Amino acid sequence: MASSPIWASRTKTRGMVLDLIRGARTISRVELVAATGLTAPTISEVVRELMVDGLVVEAGRGASTGGKPPTLVQLNPPARYSVGVQLERNLCVIVIVDLAGRQIARTSFSGVASMPPERGLPLVAGQVNGMLETAAVERHKVLGVGLVSYGPQDRRAGALLTPQPTGEWLGYPVADRLAELLGLPVLLDNDAAAAAIGEYWMGAVDPRSTYGCIYMATGIGGGVVVAGEVYRGSSSNSVEIGHVSVDVNGDECTCGNLGCLENYAGPAALVRQALTTPGLGQRLALDPSGDDFLSEFARLAAAANAGDPAARGLIERSARYLGYAAVTMTTLFDLDTVVLAGPSFAVAGSIYQSVIQEEVDRRTFARQAHPVRVVPSVSGSDAAAIGGAVLVLQSELTLGRGRGPDGGAAPSSAGEAAVGTEV
Amino acid sequence: MASSPIWASRTKTRGMVLDLIRGARTISRVELVAATGLTAPTISEVVRELMVDGLVVEAGRGASTGGKPPTLVQLNPPARYSVGVQLERNLCVIVIVDLAGRQIARTSFSGVASMPPERGLPLVAGQVNGMLETAAVERHKVLGVGLVSYGPQDRRAGALLTPQPTGEWLGYPVADRLAELLGLPVLLDNDAAAAAIGEYWMGAVDPRSTYGCIYMATGIGGGVVVAGEVYRGSSSNSVEIGHVSVDVNGDECTCGNLGCLENYAGPAALVRQALTTPGLGQRLALDPSGDDFLSEFARLAAAANAGDPAARGLIERSARYLGYAAVTMTTLFDLDTVVLAGPSFAVAGSIYQSVIQEEVDRRTFARQAHPVRVVPSVSGSDAAAIGGAVLVLQSELTLGRGRGPDGGAAPSSAGEAAVGTEV
Repeated sequence: MASSPIWASRTKTRGMVLDLIRGARTISRVELVAATGLTAPTISEVVRELMVDGLVVEAGRGASTGGKPPTLVQLNPPARYSVGVQLERNLCVIVIVDLAGRQIARTSFSGVASMPPERGLPLVAGQVNGMLETAAVERHKVLGVGLVSYGPQDRRAGALLTPQPTGEWLGYPVADRLAELLGLPVLLDNDAAAAAIGEYWMGAVDPRSTYGCIYMATGIGGGVVVAGEVYRGSSSNSVEIGHVSVDVNGDECTCGNLGCLENYAGPAALVRQALTTPGLGQRLALDPSGDDFLSEFARLAAAANAGDPAARGLIERSARYLGYAAVTMTTLFDLDTVVLAGPSFAVAGSIYQSVIQEEVDRRTFARQAHPVRVVPSVSGSDAAAIGGAVLVLQSELTLGRGRGPDGGAAPSSAGEAAVGTEV
Repeated sequence: MASSPIWASRTKTRGMVLDLIRGARTISRVELVAATGLTAPTISEVVRELMVDGLVVEAGRGASTGGKPPTLVQLNPPARYSVGVQLERNLCVIVIVDLAGRQIARTSFSGVASMPPERGLPLVAGQVNGMLETAAVERHKVLGVGLVSYGPQDRRAGALLTPQPTGEWLGYPVADRLAELLGLPVLLDNDAAAAAIGEYWMGAVDPRSTYGCIYMATGIGGGVVVAGEVYRGSSSNSVEIGHVSVDVNGDECTCGNLGCLENYAGPAALVRQALTTPGLGQRLALDPSGDDFLSEFARLAAAANAGDPAARGLIERSARYLGYAAVTMTTLFDLDTVVLAGPSFAVAGSIYQSVIQEEVDRRTFARQAHPVRVVPSVSGSDAAAIGGAVLVLQSELTLGRGRGPDGGAAPSSAGEAAVGTEV
């Protein structure tokens, strides 16, 4: 029965209640009854279980509506932790977050992704172990690790389907290997999808929102979230906005498509454009043979922010292309919000935000139906790593795929049929 | 409580069972228990209710698995009907379908959409009434009317948000007015979304599929279906693929976007291209001042099918652009299938199908993860009208928004807690 819809619906009840508590920050049982439509005894039982598990604690009393003021409950942030690891071509970011998604430790370093996974993953595991120790996080409270990287991926097998960053990573069982090294569950997911769901967990968007995220680090990716869940498609390889064509007369990309956005607007393309702009490459001390596009792009962005006209012209041109692609996203997914996340937006955010907003306002097909806001991510540069950790929290706690803190299957038995406890 | 999640979940149980019976054609109660994870008494009670309502009937006995052969049940197609009305610039199609989605009456005529709605909608209502009478459909068995047309729409208000086909249609309460004229519930929806969901109801796709539909009549629209439900986005104005840019250096479209697909690949664009191709317009007797692009395009397509090189060249060029746009759809929505629906694909389907398949195979970002099939719609030319009728069946019967056949709120009381009847 464990995989039947009804069993899942009972676990989902617990997840739904926990998600409401998370979203509301503090909430009474009476408010939970009203929000869920569940009976008072069921809510009481579910909340009791969440308190026994330590996930939820009491938080004083709310305003009285006539009788005794109701007891409020809230998440207990230090009850559980998760780890987010972002593997990028030029950068690895690791964060530890608590149950509320708040970052309690962070580290970043380069070099890992240019090694074969047999060398890179032990380095990552060593860093994770060191961070958990330094932050004094009890290991049994760690729900798992969200390893996020670019697509395409075989998410179920925990493997990348691309020979990046080096050929050895193609098809290598990265999730299983890291799990083995750490003794913790590891899920592999898309960096942009992770960045997208992070916004929801942090309470930065309306829970009913259909919103998109454009994620820009070295490359450009995307994610869409519908009412708190990542839009997956057939194989979790969705919203690859960096490889959407903006010009079918453009050159063929290494991905096989024509005129891909990434080749017009991505950091690597911009650094190449800067190197061919008279004087600019020299002025910014760009390295024509380098491949650390994140750092070189940050220098270009800094010059643009400081008023260098050539640098600003390149960034604005990139923003215009991103605006066109954002219109494709809003017109196809009918989004109410577009979040800009990742290190490359973080360094030139205000230029990108205003140009993309302008294009979206002007060209989105259904703009008469509702406005579309373009906003920076609340997690900025680290959005993907934090989102990776959030995906673990969400998967384990609120999407009805729960495990107990001991790592075993410990589904809740609370559900619609639970009876007998007073609110 | 009527709108609470739990109430909805009980109605959903009934909808889920009905959808399984529909999808399986014939199925035993034991198989329904296995497929749903519900208890035998619950299944028994839900099936009993569906039989009392006449929606389901017994269908002989299945194969024995040891004991007594189980009784099978199936949909009772003549138990309910719905009406689909497609309003197109050059054409109005009306169909009546039974519970299985099978067409039992059809009519089509032109001219309505070039009238103001005060004149056009009474004509539509007159046709619907005549068809119901001729087909001897008892009115109390008609669940409602699905009125489908182009976007953008205010689906909740039942109004089009575009001054098409004439200025008077913009914001006019088309759904309310038609409901008033017919005395039947009317829902307004997007023609391409309707065409997409039709495939699911007809059993033409795997129920777990994430698939897309490109719908081409006079214009080009799109729909995506995820596990049997239309992808909606913020306001049900999603997947407007005709107004996705294929060339940001292209001309500004009337919609505000640059280089929209429709202006390169749509029937109106092709008829214009044919008129400027030396000799072709004359050879096909195209009318330079006409606006019945559907008929003129059909002549162009017939010439292409018959081997006219100039006509074939234009259709292949259009197919190539549609292929590029299909790649944008598959790369963003991660689709496993792309369905080509509507009258303009119906007349030149094989050319379009092979060229679009070629582009999708070659350029979709995640093509290593899984193949993407390009297929013609099982409902061909009438896919939108049939889909409109199907949206009513789905909305009323399987998505937990049910009404009884008397038009009043008659939610099922069956649910997880139902007990006491033997399977």
